[in-house]
Amino acid sequence: MIIGMKTGASEDEINTVVEKVKSYGWDVQMNIGTEKTVIAVLGSNTGQVSTDIFEVLPGVETVTRIMKPYKLASREVKATNTKVPLDGFEIGGKRIIVMAGPCAVESEEQLMEAAGLVKEAGASVLRGGAFKPRTSPFSFQGLEEKGLELLQQAKEKFGMPVVTEIVDVGDVDAVSETADILQVGSRNMQNFALLTAVGKSKRPVVLKRGFSCTVTEWLTAADYLLAGGNKGVILCERGIRTFEDSIRFSMDITAVPVIKKYSHLPVIVDPSHAAGHYSLVPAIAKAAIAAGADGLLIEVHPNPEEALVDGLQSLTPVKFAKLMKELKGIAESVGRTI
Amino acid sequence: MIIGMKTGASEDEINTVVEKVKSYGWDVQMNIGTEKTVIAVLGSNTGQVSTDIFEVLPGVETVTRIMKPYKLASREVKATNTKVPLDGFEIGGKRIIVMAGPCAVESEEQLMEAAGLVKEAGASVLRGGAFKPRTSPFSFQGLEEKGLELLQQAKEKFGMPVVTEIVDVGDVDAVSETADILQVGSRNMQNFALLTAVGKSKRPVVLKRGFSCTVTEWLTAADYLLAGGNKGVILCERGIRTFEDSIRFSMDITAVPVIKKYSHLPVIVDPSHAAGHYSLVPAIAKAAIAAGADGLLIEVHPNPEEALVDGLQSLTPVKFAKLMKELKGIAESVGRTI
Amino acid sequence: MIIGMKTGASEDEINTVVEKVKSYGWDVQMNIGTEKTVIAVLGSNTGQVSTDIFEVLPGVETVTRIMKPYKLASREVKATNTKVPLDGFEIGGKRIIVMAGPCAVESEEQLMEAAGLVKEAGASVLRGGAFKPRTSPFSFQGLEEKGLELLQQAKEKFGMPVVTEIVDVGDVDAVSETADILQVGSRNMQNFALLTAVGKSKRPVVLKRGFSCTVTEWLTAADYLLAGGNKGVILCERGIRTFEDSIRFSMDITAVPVIKKYSHLPVIVDPSHAAGHYSLVPAIAKAAIAAGADGLLIEVHPNPEEALVDGLQSLTPVKFAKLMKELKGIAESVGRTI
Amino acid sequence: MIIGMKTGASEDEINTVVEKVKSYGWDVQMNIGTEKTVIAVLGSNTGQVSTDIFEVLPGVETVTRIMKPYKLASREVKATNTKVPLDGFEIGGKRIIVMAGPCAVESEEQLMEAAGLVKEAGASVLRGGAFKPRTSPFSFQGLEEKGLELLQQAKEKFGMPVVTEIVDVGDVDAVSETADILQVGSRNMQNFALLTAVGKSKRPVVLKRGFSCTVTEWLTAADYLLAGGNKGVILCERGIRTFEDSIRFSMDITAVPVIKKYSHLPVIVDPSHAAGHYSLVPAIAKAAIAAGADGLLIEVHPNPEEALVDGLQSLTPVKFAKLMKELKGIAESVGRTI
Repeated sequence: MIIGMKTGASEDEINTVVEKVKSYGWDVQMNIGTEKTVIAVLGSNTGQVSTDIFEVLPGVETVTRIMKPYKLASREVKATNTKVPLDGFEIGGKRIIVMAGPCAVESEEQLMEAAGLVKEAGASVLRGGAFKPRTSPFSFQGLEEKGLELLQQAKEKFGMPVVTEIVDVGDVDAVSETADILQVGSRNMQNFALLTAVGKSKRPVVLKRGFSCTVTEWLTAADYLLAGGNKGVILCERGIRTFEDSIRFSMDITAVPVIKKYSHLPVIVDPSHAAGHYSLVPAIAKAAIAAGADGLLIEVHPNPEEALVDGLQSLTPVKFAKLMKELKGIAESVGRTI
Repeated sequence: MIIGMKTGASEDEINTVVEKVKSYGWDVQMNIGTEKTVIAVLGSNTGQVSTDIFEVLPGVETVTRIMKPYKLASREVKATNTKVPLDGFEIGGKRIIVMAGPCAVESEEQLMEAAGLVKEAGASVLRGGAFKPRTSPFSFQGLEEKGLELLQQAKEKFGMPVVTEIVDVGDVDAVSETADILQVGSRNMQNFALLTAVGKSKRPVVLKRGFSCTVTEWLTAADYLLAGGNKGVILCERGIRTFEDSIRFSMDITAVPVIKKYSHLPVIVDPSHAAGHYSLVPAIAKAAIAAGADGLLIEVHPNPEEALVDGLQSLTPVKFAKLMKELKGIAESVGRTI
Repeated sequence: MIIGMKTGASEDEINTVVEKVKSYGWDVQMNIGTEKTVIAVLGSNTGQVSTDIFEVLPGVETVTRIMKPYKLASREVKATNTKVPLDGFEIGGKRIIVMAGPCAVESEEQLMEAAGLVKEAGASVLRGGAFKPRTSPFSFQGLEEKGLELLQQAKEKFGMPVVTEIVDVGDVDAVSETADILQVGSRNMQNFALLTAVGKSKRPVVLKRGFSCTVTEWLTAADYLLAGGNKGVILCERGIRTFEDSIRFSMDITAVPVIKKYSHLPVIVDPSHAAGHYSLVPAIAKAAIAAGADGLLIEVHPNPEEALVDGLQSLTPVKFAKLMKELKGIAESVGRTI
Repeated sequence: MIIGMKTGASEDEINTVVEKVKSYGWDVQMNIGTEKTVIAVLGSNTGQVSTDIFEVLPGVETVTRIMKPYKLASREVKATNTKVPLDGFEIGGKRIIVMAGPCAVESEEQLMEAAGLVKEAGASVLRGGAFKPRTSPFSFQGLEEKGLELLQQAKEKFGMPVVTEIVDVGDVDAVSETADILQVGSRNMQNFALLTAVGKSKRPVVLKRGFSCTVTEWLTAADYLLAGGNKGVILCERGIRTFEDSIRFSMDITAVPVIKKYSHLPVIVDPSHAAGHYSLVPAIAKAAIAAGADGLLIEVHPNPEEALVDGLQSLTPVKFAKLMKELKGIAESVGRTI
């Protein structure tokens, strides 16, 4: 951490800062310039303290972080890529993993049809929401427990692991019985009560990026899960909120190489929620693989026109199968399989 | 809702749309232009349905809402301003209500000193966090139950109602025993499990705006609370995330008149979290009152340099008292008292 | 400037950085931590050099500015507030200056009526666009030379100085003959060719903030004008682009105290372009004065329903006169006159 | 255009709206709902009129566009993809075109070395800035005329067309003599005086997206060029400004398929300015091709450590050559060549 004093800061003010630094067990090195004094704080865990504690002191002008606020998710703590093992494969390895299925579990018929079709097309994990976080209280909120039962059925019938969203601390145990992977949604990325609960689960977690959270905040949220003992954290970029109004969310494709640079965790991409429209999903999915993503989370519905939730962004099984074929060549071009 | 068909959409495609509209019990009116057909959907509750259900149909180009997705929070449902009664006063009336106190309850000494000083300076409600949602798992998380006890003590000692944040569904009952007003924080504005739980509480709720949520989404979140039976919803603007990097969040001052235009709910402003720095708090607080806010939520700490959380944005009691005086003239200029 | 080396950076890499620093005539101070080496660059003009020149070197992890990239616009170079003198008054002094009039000059009748009415209501400067920057090539582009002639007429008839926009380097001389204040629009804030030309004019300049430019970029653009010799720079906040869709632009009200903190230049506020709708203009105008703005730039049209440009955001003369009265009390509450 | 009247709007108010619509030569169709009246405006050029002209009328609540404000750039006006012919190849065809070279022309030696190396690696067009728009007046502003001369030399020596930026209306003729393609920079995308001048040039134009402009605004700016008679418009996505702070600009990769959906113009991607750091350039470049871009504009410098401008985001010739090889497979996977 670097503390820049104001021009003309008094000796007393400088001493107060130095003493506060030392009270945390850190060392200082003084840089006395012609105009301003700059104090470097030397310590191994300065990233986890707010810059405010120094900026509030009299005579301080700026406080700048050199270390990141996250720790466990960083490459500095773990240099090698984390691979999250699942039944017979792993996420974060050479093979790109595709998770696909309907946004919401709607009925046995819908789920079984979807599961069979996405498996046939090459998906490795079945997605499907039982508990749905909806922006309006008047919208369909999911089948809840009945949805979990259907997911259990599909899982057994098709031998596919399932990923489903968790929205309430009280549901962690029940959902973990069925789900092979828990999903924390975008709007809950900074629901710290939920992160703490999910951090204690033994199930891997897909942590979706908050739609207005920085990569740094995202990795700091991952620290909540890792600090709780959960080693199976899978990051999922799903688009960020910007001023652009021709799509639902702007896919932050650069987040993929940025995550790879700063973190050891695997990162997958959800093109469906970013696009908001099925016609844009294939281009984003291809871009994600080309940029280095470890997997995809794609909405596929046997009959999007009848979907209760997010039909517009769902691929038909035919379009999904076509996309899977196109992704193959791109995966190979970047040294991966799919 | 207005459905614009693509140039050259077929009669079949148009008929499919019309049938779908009718399946919801609504009427259509056809606008057959020279180039495109536009279908107006006529019904009283079209705002609560996703535009996707029509946009996914073949031949549809655009679907545009005329009605808002929120209902109970809207002025159309309730034309007169809602006033939330508290012990001896109300929020949303002529008098501007100031809620002040430390970000986090840290100790008996700190809380009692703060409570006494903010009361003396004219604050009506004491704020103080017992459960703190922190972005890093390694930061101070609040005194929790012990914090609630101290709030109870301060409340009795100074005869001031208290507002405190609720972060977990499981805490609603316990917190409601002490808190006169519950607070739902910015990062939980779309935590629908929490909104549902708080909606059933009898305590009024300060619903902070998600830092990247639109006014429409905010009012739709308020609908969750209102639909649950909670009539005491108080909106709180606290700054939005933008590209600007000289402050923590950009205060969206225009949200105040916008809320007044579309909603009957009272709206207060939190200048502290937007500013991130005490030196900017007074200007924002004054602007908020001038723009028509019904109240303020301000962080005041007896000794900001020693604060465990957010010291940099806290006013000293002296600065707070000075601000309260300055606000008086502005309140009068806009026909209010404080 | 602070250069953070990567963990394990070699001695050679560190030396290369040190030599590059010295090649600019600056000194270094080394902070050799247990994990990382941090190099402080000591010099008085490091703010004007890109951080890239060091970040590109091998072994460098981060480069952080301590000094701002702008210089002439900063309070460090000039501590006292700049007051821009005009015929009989000044901008940036105790008196708040209101500039009002139609968005575009449309006809003699319209301009004279507007000028008379805004003067009567208390405006000090007449605004009116002769050259209009329009987002579509098919929109009305302004009366151009004819518009300047009408502004000259109004100026003489009512004895009011006029402010008008300049959109082309080639027009600086012609516009300067009539205009008492030149205006550089939001979309031209980083049109450096235009800034260079206007910097050489003797007329004061209203420099509108680019709708997606940071305060730092804005003050750096002001440096272009000041470096050219133009001392009469007046900053104008007019709203920034955000995700919020209920208004045209989000008024960044905090920019007012932020500018006052970092710069000596006067700052005014344009509530009309931010609001996009007349009903929101008064609240923003009041907030601006409460927050410390030195003036306002407001669109007033004798008949907004017939306006060729931006009628929706224009106040009627009656509404403008009412607003001027309401602003009086707020101005007095913050120690100003109007 | 769809005009929603307020609940309880009077017959007079409705009639005024209808008359105004008819004054533009358009027809109306009335949708009289149980609660609100909605008026559909039927005409072929409603997209080019501001919604304000109706929204300002009494009794009007909302006005919604059905038609886009741009016309000439739209697929509705021209269904087939535009291909911009250059000497021996075309932009917008099956072959992906790569434009590469240094950000700024710095010296004969630097430019010739860069030109030779990028040609060898497979680039088709040489990029290099002679006139540089710089955010600070104290930064290197380019070699100007001398830079043009060097570009002319490189062009002759290597037989490569060159693209260079134009920043001033007065330079259009001089730059057009040397440049095979003119470039309008991001900060000038809404410099309408410049667009008008460049629209009259016979040279193709790379129109970079304003870093905070929507796709709709971008295509409307393209209309300026097309309306001026310039048929060779090439769009260039270069990243947008968002809240994310780990990169310089967020690459809006979805803009590529969105442009392809709404416009017939070719679109290329500049990964260098978005990334701001060379290490992120390859991932973005690959994603762009996978998403369907027609070309790339990449900064390559023989010695980035010594670059006067933007060295950090420039690839070395070795890294560029490696990238070109990797792009080949991706291009083939999406049915293109490079």
